Amino acid sequence: MGLTSTQSRRKISDLTEFTARVLVSVGLPAQDAHRVATLIAEADALGADGHGIFRLPQYVKRIQSGGINTRPDIRTIQDHPATALLDGDNGMGHLVMSRAAEIAIEKAKTAGVAWVGARHSNHAGPASLYARMPLAHDMAGLYIAVGSANHLPPWGGIAMLLSTNPIAIAVPGAQSRHIVLDMATTNAAYGKVKIKAQRNETMPEGWMIDRRGNPLTDPKRADEGFLLPIGGPKGYGLALMFGLLAGSLNGAAFGKDVVDFNHDFSTLTNTGHLIVAVNIAAFAEVPGFKSKVSEIWDLMKSSPLLPGFDEIRLPGERSAKIYQDRVANGVPLSLELQGALDQLADRLGVERI
Amino acid sequence: MGLTSTQSRRKISDLTEFTARVLVSVGLPAQDAHRVATLIAEADALGADGHGIFRLPQYVKRIQSGGINTRPDIRTIQDHPATALLDGDNGMGHLVMSRAAEIAIEKAKTAGVAWVGARHSNHAGPASLYARMPLAHDMAGLYIAVGSANHLPPWGGIAMLLSTNPIAIAVPGAQSRHIVLDMATTNAAYGKVKIKAQRNETMPEGWMIDRRGNPLTDPKRADEGFLLPIGGPKGYGLALMFGLLAGSLNGAAFGKDVVDFNHDFSTLTNTGHLIVAVNIAAFAEVPGFKSKVSEIWDLMKSSPLLPGFDEIRLPGERSAKIYQDRVANGVPLSLELQGALDQLADRLGVERI
Repeated sequence: MGLTSTQSRRKISDLTEFTARVLVSVGLPAQDAHRVATLIAEADALGADGHGIFRLPQYVKRIQSGGINTRPDIRTIQDHPATALLDGDNGMGHLVMSRAAEIAIEKAKTAGVAWVGARHSNHAGPASLYARMPLAHDMAGLYIAVGSANHLPPWGGIAMLLSTNPIAIAVPGAQSRHIVLDMATTNAAYGKVKIKAQRNETMPEGWMIDRRGNPLTDPKRADEGFLLPIGGPKGYGLALMFGLLAGSLNGAAFGKDVVDFNHDFSTLTNTGHLIVAVNIAAFAEVPGFKSKVSEIWDLMKSSPLLPGFDEIRLPGERSAKIYQDRVANGVPLSLELQGALDQLADRLGVERI
Repeated sequence: MGLTSTQSRRKISDLTEFTARVLVSVGLPAQDAHRVATLIAEADALGADGHGIFRLPQYVKRIQSGGINTRPDIRTIQDHPATALLDGDNGMGHLVMSRAAEIAIEKAKTAGVAWVGARHSNHAGPASLYARMPLAHDMAGLYIAVGSANHLPPWGGIAMLLSTNPIAIAVPGAQSRHIVLDMATTNAAYGKVKIKAQRNETMPEGWMIDRRGNPLTDPKRADEGFLLPIGGPKGYGLALMFGLLAGSLNGAAFGKDVVDFNHDFSTLTNTGHLIVAVNIAAFAEVPGFKSKVSEIWDLMKSSPLLPGFDEIRLPGERSAKIYQDRVANGVPLSLELQGALDQLADRLGVERI
């Protein structure tokens, strides 16, 4: 978390405005560009460095290669009292999944729970962005996605047929002490590998192995190996089930149909995601439940520590602290990222950040 | 899976009838006893050795200690189009959660998805028993429970505030090639530790550590340490979120309120679980989806192998093979288990298995 001398801080509103300028310059309507930009900047504010403005050059490359539809007609193609299936018409994933979250929240108000799936979407940033959306409505949120490139083989195999298929679960707590888990089903998310490569750092053992099963620690050689799932076969199992539910069930890509968006910028990705909103009031008295969540928070914190640890953290706690800091002091951008964004701005003829 | 010379095989119907005899003898109505017995025998048929008839002496001890209500009034206390909250009135968990599954399936027929939670329930056997129930209705199933004893501290701590909180996810495939994940959020389920202890075997490193962080491999010393979560902080995060959703949200025990059912046989456990049924037809054309699931199955199998592995397995595949074998040839019971069941039968004055 330390701010090094090679980094400068940028206000969140600067990130938002710059991102919106860039997206408008490549064809998004102003309102859509602003919505996407707000979510991208929020990802950075929350500390999801591998899923925020860092991805902007890649999004632009895909848009300019015809791989993303800048004027999508996002529509509901199946509808039930507690479910919907959206067709994202190959728009930016942020637009598709924020729409999906809105629908899920609206349906859960009367149904108690709602599950909304999407097909023909695209990479939408960090999972927790969407799982958090129901919190403001006193609902829990659950989001699952098919990752945008396969970096994981089935357990015991070497063919990369699975992605890191992430899950985020958000539960509302009192005084906004929400508990928010956001995790890949692999020991490391691929976004973290990309960050390591950009920073010229090595990866710890346990993140990746090569095709002979040996540890791979050079992130620039990531293409020669694959990520390791959490708990071995269990993480493989989770990645597989999440792919079936967020991909296959929605008529979205899964398995060999997943397009590697790091290397292919024009083929339709047909990305699938799902979001579930659970109305707390359908089960519990809301303030009482939120107090209970806060009690659980304090209870976990109260545990004596194992040798070598200096605190117990709750899922989302680190992110909430980063958020506070970055809202007050801005988002640190590495020199490499700053350079990439300047280059992008110059090429598009928009004002630099 | 090898059948040793110290094991004998028993027909599944023998397990069912014996279990029903035992449960009737301690006060369950015949119909309830048969329903529970059928689910317990099914757990054994599916290879969930730590969650089937192995648990019967413990269930009986709890019933005879007044810790389980043999004549529960299981009722819906909150109801929405896609949700329900059940109060299990401290009945056997199998009765509560099979009822919950029925309600979820019925609601998902019209709502598209349904989420049913339960409080005042008890240990209900393996998670996959309930996640599988929607399969016959062309639905996917998802089941989460708060485990019945805390064996897991928060990541970095030593206070055992969490259980192995398991999840099962079942997705229907063509020709009954369903994919069914059933996993604890720890590297090993506590039931497996109990099996190791009964068989006088040692545990592999990675299952448990002691309070100083050293590996613990003697299952008879299990009380001196705790289980390790999958993926370190990620497994802790999953166990925590599952506890909030299956426990706190339902008004059921979680955290320090969880009663250790291995050591306390009379205190109300207030066990919480949840089941979600997802109607495939609300998202996809059913036969097409099931074929897609089978394609994914074959695709995973097609991967070349990593050195040291001889096959790729799908979640639930091993269990399906065991099921076929045990339906045809019976369930192997270890001498120790056979002895425990004979002792139970003699004590209760019912016919031995």
